[in-house]
Formats: sequence, structure tokens, C-alpha cells
Amino acid sequence: MKKEFIVTPWETKGKIDYNKLVKEFGLQYLKNLPQSLKESLLFRRDIIFAHRDFNRIIDCIQNKKPFIMMTGLMPSGKFHFGHKIIADQIILYQKLGAKIYLAVADLEAYNSRNPNLQELRKIAIEEYLLNYIALGLNIKKCDFYFQSARSKNAEKSNSYYRLIGMLSRHATFNEFKAIYGDINPGKMISSLIQASDMLHPQLSQFEGPLPTLIPVGADQDPHLRLARDLSQRIKEFKFIQLSSTCNKFIPALNGDKMSSSDPTSYIALTDSPEEAAMKIKKYAFSGGQPTIEEHRNKGGNPDIDSSFQLLKFGLEESDHKLEEIYSNYKNGSLLTSELKAIVIEKLASFLKNHQKNRERAKKELTNLDL
Amino acid sequence: MKKEFIVTPWETKGKIDYNKLVKEFGLQYLKNLPQSLKESLLFRRDIIFAHRDFNRIIDCIQNKKPFIMMTGLMPSGKFHFGHKIIADQIILYQKLGAKIYLAVADLEAYNSRNPNLQELRKIAIEEYLLNYIALGLNIKKCDFYFQSARSKNAEKSNSYYRLIGMLSRHATFNEFKAIYGDINPGKMISSLIQASDMLHPQLSQFEGPLPTLIPVGADQDPHLRLARDLSQRIKEFKFIQLSSTCNKFIPALNGDKMSSSDPTSYIALTDSPEEAAMKIKKYAFSGGQPTIEEHRNKGGNPDIDSSFQLLKFGLEESDHKLEEIYSNYKNGSLLTSELKAIVIEKLASFLKNHQKNRERAKKELTNLDL
Repeated sequence: MKKEFIVTPWETKGKIDYNKLVKEFGLQYLKNLPQSLKESLLFRRDIIFAHRDFNRIIDCIQNKKPFIMMTGLMPSGKFHFGHKIIADQIILYQKLGAKIYLAVADLEAYNSRNPNLQELRKIAIEEYLLNYIALGLNIKKCDFYFQSARSKNAEKSNSYYRLIGMLSRHATFNEFKAIYGDINPGKMISSLIQASDMLHPQLSQFEGPLPTLIPVGADQDPHLRLARDLSQRIKEFKFIQLSSTCNKFIPALNGDKMSSSDPTSYIALTDSPEEAAMKIKKYAFSGGQPTIEEHRNKGGNPDIDSSFQLLKFGLEESDHKLEEIYSNYKNGSLLTSELKAIVIEKLASFLKNHQKNRERAKKELTNLDL
Repeated sequence: MKKEFIVTPWETKGKIDYNKLVKEFGLQYLKNLPQSLKESLLFRRDIIFAHRDFNRIIDCIQNKKPFIMMTGLMPSGKFHFGHKIIADQIILYQKLGAKIYLAVADLEAYNSRNPNLQELRKIAIEEYLLNYIALGLNIKKCDFYFQSARSKNAEKSNSYYRLIGMLSRHATFNEFKAIYGDINPGKMISSLIQASDMLHPQLSQFEGPLPTLIPVGADQDPHLRLARDLSQRIKEFKFIQLSSTCNKFIPALNGDKMSSSDPTSYIALTDSPEEAAMKIKKYAFSGGQPTIEEHRNKGGNPDIDSSFQLLKFGLEESDHKLEEIYSNYKNGSLLTSELKAIVIEKLASFLKNHQKNRERAKKELTNLDL
């Protein structure tokens, strides 16, 4: 049976059936969320749709116990609304008391994409980190690092890299093949580095054993399965099993595939309001009907409409307003051009504000010793 | 065609035909050695029997130009006369001006043998390093490190581990299979760590590009082939191609297989003269004839006699005396018991002296911050 969609760390295509992923990946649906999480639209709107061992983190949040949130970034192309989903989660958990670990997956990028570490460093800082800070990350309370140079403290660095070497004893080729499909030495090592990224905060040189949350996009789930399996085999360390949540993808603007090399497939957080407006007008895939008359009669389909998705994934904070737009679009009283106008206005206001925050963040960055 | 001997990093068995290895591994025979090398019996007696790009190192020695000698030790069992061949070379090249890098292959040991890093550390220091120092290594002029904790300087550590991650991009599974035969993730990572061991002294954080010699036992040659191949593919660094020499193995005392777990297969440098004498008398495989009469008539075979090999590999420094013993044994005028008596006496004198040096070395060790 040919699969109608593919979700792996190296390829995502087709219309994703997230319920199938839950089953296939062995995930759990979210329930009994505390108020502090329901306040985030990502949870409210089911954008974060599944988890593994997340109750351990909920317990920490509710009882104000320490926990770690770790995530990584792949320095590639522009920072866009797809990336913002993870940034929003980092900031959310930081506010909820998590100790944040933020890895630049530059060795993974070197092994799979761009073999220029200098360039990767520049992209990571100027494109990603800057936007994180502008969105509200407190960088001073965050362990931000590069896979290629873990720490300025040798003991910490050594323990992180030692763990990578040790984890390899506990892995087999067959499980790499089963988890990833196609595999080569560079990818294999990248997975072990990622496993160390996720587990090393629990080493004694860092926080020691603590509940650790890894929020991921659905495509990154295989890395997590490997890290969880390995963590329980390496008995020298008393790793608390990793918790994770899994989030949906924001669809490509043009309805096609989101790609860093195709700026018509996304809105970047550095796009000017004018550029963003042009992209929405010209490229945003519409769920509306071909003619105004037809639209008034049959109504549009917000679920496949890229402009509407931008509202849903965060531009429109109010659930009430979002539902209103949804039903008006569906019943045909709201036209595609009107929906796009709402989105363009929301985007303009968000981008203007964000770009002001970026200027502030730039100043903050120059004072950092990265 | 079934091979009559096997020489790989994980298995050595059968009677080794070193000329076949030269051909199979693509090695060169040694020639035009300078006097300073011929002074070592390892070269004089063809124990070091082949090389790759060794002329670059000869040039450094003759013209007093800087060069690096790097080697590793696998912390496993007792330090015996088999290990001494590499120790002798380290000390030789240190005297000839080489900057010495000495790696404890503890991550490799973790991945293939003993998964107790604490124990491996203890063995490496108390069993190996102590004997190196007692044999004449100037530890203060030597970069001694563990794969599991490269340096106390974070920049150095990071650059060493970064190189491991980067090298993986330039390797393929097929070449691991071709070079090593059987392979698993732990072995694969060990090979890449070893490649970084051999190459990282040339990084800017260490010595920068310099001729680098890796003296190895024949079984370790595959690691060298991989490191040489990778070094020329990773264009970001201007690695000078690695030079190597290859040495023969000292045969197992009992004529069987030398094994750390079988103390009758070797003389350890910590054996007492009495233990050593007992082992020679009881276990040393003899090239002599079954009866004295037969021995007088047919003569013995020193080439397969384990006691004689101990003399040849270093206990008897004088070529003249060694030749005399060789021909007397061969023509039957020297009996097995007489040959063994010579070896026992030589061993007693060597071990007594060495163990005195070990006491001195212990004091030196306590002052080191490893």
C-alpha cells in the first residue's frame, strides 16, 4: 500500500493525517491540561496534538518543581511562521519555570545540508536567535549552544561529547534503519548527537536527572524515539525518561511544500509588511471559490486556506474572532479578498511590532558572549 | 580461497605473512633509514617492517624540523612485552624531537570491550602510563589524554570532538565495511574518533599542519587507511597526509594466541623475576627438539621459539650476541634449557631495573594533574 503522506526528519510531503501519526509513532492524545497551558493557543487549538510522558511535565508546572525544556534549531534559510511555533513554546515554558536548553544543530546541518560552519553560525545567531529574543526569549536564562562547540567549560563539553560516544554502544544499525529508513554515517552520527542534546542536560555536569520536555514538530519524532530507547539502555546514568509533545505543521503559504529556498512558500519574520501583503495577495493558497457568486453560494473552505491558517496558528489570538472568521468564510459571507485583507492587516501590525523588537534584540545580542 | 591468517583491529590469528600484508595493505618497505633510526633494534631487526609516507618524517628528523608522533593505547589487562614495542617507539621519537600525542582509547574500549570508564581510566594510568614513564617517556613533554575527556581547555576539546562529527560527512558505510568487515555503530564511531585522534594534532587549536607519524601494529593499519582517506576529503583543513610505520607482533609466549585474559601467553612488565622465570620454564613455546640427542643432531628452530623472540624483540641489545645465540641454537650446540636460562637471566635483570624505575615513575605520577 502506497502511503499518501510522508513525515520523516528529511522529508515531509502529502496531506498529513495526524491521527495516523499518533498511532504510527505510538503517541498519546493530550488531556487534563492545566489552565497555564490552555492559555496558549497552541494547546487550545490542538496545534500541539499529542505527547509522550507529558504528565510528568504537567506535574512540575502545577507543583512548581524544576524541569528542563530542550529544543534545537536547524540554521537554514529565513526564520518564518513555521519556526515560530517552537519559539512560542520555548517562551511559554521559560515563563512557566523551565530551564531552557537551546541547541544549534550545526553539526547536523554540516552533515546533511550546508558544510560551512561559519555561515551556519551566522544564520543561527542573526536569523534564529535574534528572532527568539525579539519574540520574548530571555537569552540570559537560557543555555544556548552549538553542537560543534558545546561549552566554554571543558568539563561540560567533555561530558556532552562523551555521552555521544557512549550512546553508540547501545544502538544498532537495524534500529537506525527501522527509525529513519535511509541512513548514512553522517545522519547516524547526527542522530546520536541529537540524543545527547536531549539527554545531556540530565548529566551531573549540567542539571542532574530532571524531567525534560522536548517539544517537536511531527517530523522530528523519530529522533525522540531513538533518544528515549537509548536513555533506558545506558544504565550508568539515571536518566528520567524524556517527555515530548508533537505539533502540527503550518501549511506552506502557496499550498505546495514549505521550503527555505522558496520565499513564496512562507512569510518570514523579517519580511516587510509590504512584502508580506504582496505574498498573501499573490501566493496565499485560497480555500475560496473561483467566482464571487459561487463563493456566496457554496462558501469557502478555511481548513485548506493558507491565510486562515496564519490566523489560526497565532496571528488571531481571540478564539471568538477566529471562529467568527471561520464560519463567515465557510458560509460565504466573507470573501477571499476580505479574509486576505484581515490577514494582511494582522501581519502588518505583528511584523511592525516584531521588527521593533528585533532592533532591541540586536542590542541585547551585541552584549552577549556567544 | 581460505586465508591462512587474519589481521584486523578485532582479531589476529594464524601465522602472519608480513610480506603479504605489505601487498594487501598497500604499504612500502623501509629503506635509506638515517643512523638515528638504525640505532633502534626495532628498525635494525626489521620488527618495524613497512611504512606509508615515512620519508616525510625522516626528512624532519634529519633536518631537525618539527613533527608530531601520535599513538593510542587500549586500556585492557596487563602491560606486556607486546605493548612495549609501541612504548619503545614513543620514547625513540620523543628523543628525536617529536611532539608526542598519546590517546587513551577509552571510548573505543567502552564501545567494544569494557563499559566501565572509571576502571578503564585506572588501568590506563596505573598499568600503561606508569610503565611508559618507567621506560623513559617524559610525560611532561607529552599530550596525554582520554578520548572521553579530551582536554581541560574547552576550545581544544570542542575542536577535537567537532572534527569527529565533521569527518562522518565524508565517510560511507561501504567503506567501513570494506575496511573493517563486520561493523556496528559503536565500532564505526570508534573509527571516526580514532581518525580524529590521528588528525586533530594538526588543527589550529593544537600544532597546526605538521608531518605526523602514527606507528602501529599491523592490526591497527585499517584505522590508518580510513584516517588517511578522510583527511584528504575534508577540504576545510589543510591536513598533511599522515605518515605511518607498521610493526610485527611479538608472538604469544605459549605459541598460541596472545591474550590479556591469559597470563601464560605473555610476560607482563609487572611480573616478578620469579614469575617470569616460571612462565619461561613452564609455558614458553620451544623451537627445540624433543630429546637432547635429537636437538644436538638436528638443531632447534629459533624463528618459532618464544624465548628467542623475547631476545630478538629487545631483551638482547647486541646484534652480535643475538646472532651467536641464533646460530648456536640452530646448530644444536645451545640447548632449549640453556636458551631459556639466558632469557630468564636477561628478564630478571630487565624486570628488576624496570620495577625500580616504576617506583620512581609512581612518584612522578602523583605530581601530575591528569
